[in-house]
Amino acid sequence: MEILPGKLLATLNNPNDLKKIDKADLHKVCDELRQYIIDVVSVYGGHFAASLGVVELTVALHYIYNTPYDQLVWDVGHQAYGHKILTGRRDSFITNRKYKGLSGFPKRSESEYDTFGVGHSSTSISAALGMAIAAKYKNENRKSVAIIGDGSMTAGMAFEAMNHAGVADTDLLVILNDNGIGIDPNVGALKEYLTDITTSPTYNKVRDDVWKLLGKLPVGKTFTRDMASKLEASVKGMVSKSSNLFEALNFRYFGPIDGHNITKLVDTLQDLKNIPGPKLLHIITTKGKGYALAEKDQTKWHAPGLFDKVSGEIYKKKFDVPQPPKYQDVFGHTILELAEKNEKIFGITPAMPSGSSLNIMMKAMPHRAIDVGIAEQHAVTVSAGLTTQGMKVFCNIYSSFMQRAYDQVVHDVAIQKLPVVFCLDRAGLVGDDGPTHHGCYDIAYFRCIPNMIIASPMNEGELRNLMYTAQLDAIKYPFVIRYPRGEGVMPEWKTKFEEIQIGTGRKLKDGNDIAILSLGHPGNFVQAAIRELKTEHINPAHYDMRFVKPIDEALLHEVFCKYEKIITVEDGTVVGGFGTAVLEFMAANNYKATVKILGIPDRIVEHGTPKELYEECGYNTPAIINAVRNLHKEEVKVSIVN
Amino acid sequence: MEILPGKLLATLNNPNDLKKIDKADLHKVCDELRQYIIDVVSVYGGHFAASLGVVELTVALHYIYNTPYDQLVWDVGHQAYGHKILTGRRDSFITNRKYKGLSGFPKRSESEYDTFGVGHSSTSISAALGMAIAAKYKNENRKSVAIIGDGSMTAGMAFEAMNHAGVADTDLLVILNDNGIGIDPNVGALKEYLTDITTSPTYNKVRDDVWKLLGKLPVGKTFTRDMASKLEASVKGMVSKSSNLFEALNFRYFGPIDGHNITKLVDTLQDLKNIPGPKLLHIITTKGKGYALAEKDQTKWHAPGLFDKVSGEIYKKKFDVPQPPKYQDVFGHTILELAEKNEKIFGITPAMPSGSSLNIMMKAMPHRAIDVGIAEQHAVTVSAGLTTQGMKVFCNIYSSFMQRAYDQVVHDVAIQKLPVVFCLDRAGLVGDDGPTHHGCYDIAYFRCIPNMIIASPMNEGELRNLMYTAQLDAIKYPFVIRYPRGEGVMPEWKTKFEEIQIGTGRKLKDGNDIAILSLGHPGNFVQAAIRELKTEHINPAHYDMRFVKPIDEALLHEVFCKYEKIITVEDGTVVGGFGTAVLEFMAANNYKATVKILGIPDRIVEHGTPKELYEECGYNTPAIINAVRNLHKEEVKVSIVN
Repeated sequence: MEILPGKLLATLNNPNDLKKIDKADLHKVCDELRQYIIDVVSVYGGHFAASLGVVELTVALHYIYNTPYDQLVWDVGHQAYGHKILTGRRDSFITNRKYKGLSGFPKRSESEYDTFGVGHSSTSISAALGMAIAAKYKNENRKSVAIIGDGSMTAGMAFEAMNHAGVADTDLLVILNDNGIGIDPNVGALKEYLTDITTSPTYNKVRDDVWKLLGKLPVGKTFTRDMASKLEASVKGMVSKSSNLFEALNFRYFGPIDGHNITKLVDTLQDLKNIPGPKLLHIITTKGKGYALAEKDQTKWHAPGLFDKVSGEIYKKKFDVPQPPKYQDVFGHTILELAEKNEKIFGITPAMPSGSSLNIMMKAMPHRAIDVGIAEQHAVTVSAGLTTQGMKVFCNIYSSFMQRAYDQVVHDVAIQKLPVVFCLDRAGLVGDDGPTHHGCYDIAYFRCIPNMIIASPMNEGELRNLMYTAQLDAIKYPFVIRYPRGEGVMPEWKTKFEEIQIGTGRKLKDGNDIAILSLGHPGNFVQAAIRELKTEHINPAHYDMRFVKPIDEALLHEVFCKYEKIITVEDGTVVGGFGTAVLEFMAANNYKATVKILGIPDRIVEHGTPKELYEECGYNTPAIINAVRNLHKEEVKVSIVN
Repeated sequence: MEILPGKLLATLNNPNDLKKIDKADLHKVCDELRQYIIDVVSVYGGHFAASLGVVELTVALHYIYNTPYDQLVWDVGHQAYGHKILTGRRDSFITNRKYKGLSGFPKRSESEYDTFGVGHSSTSISAALGMAIAAKYKNENRKSVAIIGDGSMTAGMAFEAMNHAGVADTDLLVILNDNGIGIDPNVGALKEYLTDITTSPTYNKVRDDVWKLLGKLPVGKTFTRDMASKLEASVKGMVSKSSNLFEALNFRYFGPIDGHNITKLVDTLQDLKNIPGPKLLHIITTKGKGYALAEKDQTKWHAPGLFDKVSGEIYKKKFDVPQPPKYQDVFGHTILELAEKNEKIFGITPAMPSGSSLNIMMKAMPHRAIDVGIAEQHAVTVSAGLTTQGMKVFCNIYSSFMQRAYDQVVHDVAIQKLPVVFCLDRAGLVGDDGPTHHGCYDIAYFRCIPNMIIASPMNEGELRNLMYTAQLDAIKYPFVIRYPRGEGVMPEWKTKFEEIQIGTGRKLKDGNDIAILSLGHPGNFVQAAIRELKTEHINPAHYDMRFVKPIDEALLHEVFCKYEKIITVEDGTVVGGFGTAVLEFMAANNYKATVKILGIPDRIVEHGTPKELYEECGYNTPAIINAVRNLHKEEVKVSIVN
């Protein structure tokens, strides 16, 4: 079924076409744009509700600003579908998030309108400020606009950028897209503050009232002119300088205004365009605007998958036999199960309750499972603080987001040897979210830190056992458990807990000639490869190493004594990762085997399905088979020399 | 010369002793404590001005709070000397920052009064909040207090913690120690805001005036009761909710008060102790208080080295011959030299103008060299934003602080392949600042990121050439240049610029049997070792590899073809670092040499002089000699087997 844009939208090939539309007709563009997003996403998938919420803003921005000369930076970027459609990617939008297709996020290499690649939150103000500083330096009258949600505003780097922008004297506009929700509802004092100033009486009205009343101050016997002027000065001082969080940071604050009123938006942006200096426009929008179900359950409709746009039915695959659960759900149920027995357990998530499935525990134990907002740095250090008091904290952060809290792990956890448990969801290739979200680096970036225990389960039962082990009092070190996005392999996943000896792997099978050492979920690819190779009478051994640090040296001695050809498999970078750890062991113990490392190559891997990407990266089952065959043919070099 | 504490201070062995002092006599304790810090630091060295600034606060906190049951978290911690002296470490204080002596920062393993290890800024609120959440959960009436400077408050993670604390409903006190200076003067909108609310008329006075005047509102014909009550409600609404940045985040705000008035401090803390919920006390202090010279030049007296406490003369070593410069100064002069010719060059530092020597360029080109405040994350992404506009940005961040901006390097720079230049000062072991400041991990944590160029100069001339090369238009990748704290080796350092081919090392000498591959400054240790070994007729080859990524494969093929025994030397962790890169090359190319990796071992290295630590870690000249001797004796295993 071909999806066609509306009549008006079909004529808009770039923002110049948009500028020719009469202001009074822009609402039609909005309607058609919104409908096109619904049409395409319902059939092709992708993020949904966020882009619906900024349809009017997107149209207004490209109507008023001279893009791409003027520069828009979309924070996070999954709300930028409208922007993509209006900037020359209307027809290719059906390839959104597909292998070799459009990225789900703005991306510099994709379009000159995408001024800055995004994916993680809260980078937009810094990036736009850098652009604004350059424009000022080059004497260009080029505008920079950052569009950031109220959730992203809670992350520290947004505040750092505001603190700098407030004194940088550049022509920067920050648009605060206030909808109260990221993926899950936003939390924290900032959200409450924004609610305060946008609810009755509105902030603006309060301010207006004060000015009006001050003008009417009666001066008489009991209330002198001096008193009146003091009062006025005092109130003015407070109102103009300190009355607003953003004004305290030296931004001129405008709003709040209705972000779905296209005329008001266009007029306001037109005015703001000519006001110099740092300024913030606060707009109120509804995530999912225009699609009733999405407005009602915004978390569910953040990225719903495919759905019937008329009935609102979200399609689910149906299976005849029980399917394995998602790793995240195993985490979510297991932490609750453990916490019911161990009263020291806390759960911490930075704004990913549903993505991590910590929401299961948050519902059951609201005081022991905490969403701290988009604040990875704080999430780690507040976990460290809790741990100093004897609590056992499971801090769940996606692998790629953990990059945000790297120093906190080093400085606040590892150096102090605090036994925080880090559950790294989305480790390895995540699929269609692409390079910003792939969890490629965690093995390498954590392995170099002293005191860390780093493990990865091959299946659901192993995840449960690692979690069980991590919460035992005997564990005195930080403990990382990394697992992938998506499903495991065990439909009957609710196994009995067993303690795992720290730093021990498992020999899954003996073999001849070649040993395969795997870490984590790809061990399942290895098993499939071994089954296949059996028909060729090739019989490699298989070890699930389980821990990359401390690595199982006893097992490795066995491997290096028995095998001269070794293949390692991991869903992490081949630079400095698990395979490299095996090389370091080999060098330290002066073994001389041939070691072939399979994993994520040392280049940026784009988006696609996990299946497509595993194949591209060469560590899926066929690739493992291939590597074994090649090594099987190869004579050991040392033997040749002899 | 023995340094004795004052008579009163000599009786104070712990905070319980302090609590027995009459409040009226506390100022004497303050005087003696301040004098003791001056006496010891002038002779033994250490951070200076910061601790002088919080003498009264330190005394007041331990006087009022039931430490260590109540928990104080000092942000950064170089202001905690008074705290150490009052908590059982008065007599051992002369070992401060010495090898095996007291740490220059609070440290959990050193004292139960040190509730949280610090060193990097802005962690205190998160840590204290974690403690407060645990206390609430455990139903303990235990107080948590974070003491944080106004500079540290600008870092994002402090804001993240405030955002969470504002809704966490715990008994947390944040003391904002506002002195306007970190190491260099603080910058940013927050600083201006704090100045606003603390200068005439003081914020409190304004507030008080408003309340007083509102109470006297005359109600009559022209000014109705209704109008009056509206005005009062409006003003109250603003004052209580939004009038203050911190109140906007749901903290109760108190102050500002004079942080050198011990009686006022004691009384205020006593009052605050019994007020529940999140609260912030704003105190005004003077860094260096009580030592006139330090008050006058606070940057110079942050950590002045040894000095004559009477004359104020800071001792400098005197030399008969010209000495090599510090690497940081080579950076500082060279970036200016390059920027004079290349108008695209910008310099960015997160609050380290003097430490990085970027202050040289800041003075000459204030619009092109920018201190963005304690804000590493923002520093990297604003650099990325500038780079999208064709600027060539040198972003100078200490190696250990770069950990704070790891995600920004991955997400905003490397994935987008933006050619930002990162100059990592303080790479390797930094000496007496200890584990929080050692730059051990950067090679490992950057090497695993695609698109990165990573180099390290062996001397000043090489640093200049790398900087020259990095700013050339031909460079299309992010470029990391790491160099150590302290002096290089070239008194005549101002060499002519030469372009260096990316990914090329240098063969410094041929040899027999053994090849030593070094990265960066430790190449000089290797040269000294080789001179020494000559007398023993051992003659290893020496290669200065210069780049760890891309590594010089041609040179490595030469090495592995010629030598079966290889030693690598680096001032970084041996896990995943430069030596490991050599192993990865060896495995990928199926060479079978014996490789011995020298570098920082995989454990937390404490503080001490660089000399002491190099020896402990085993990569100084004697250690290299030793490694060569051992390898020289050893037969190549493969030969034995044959």
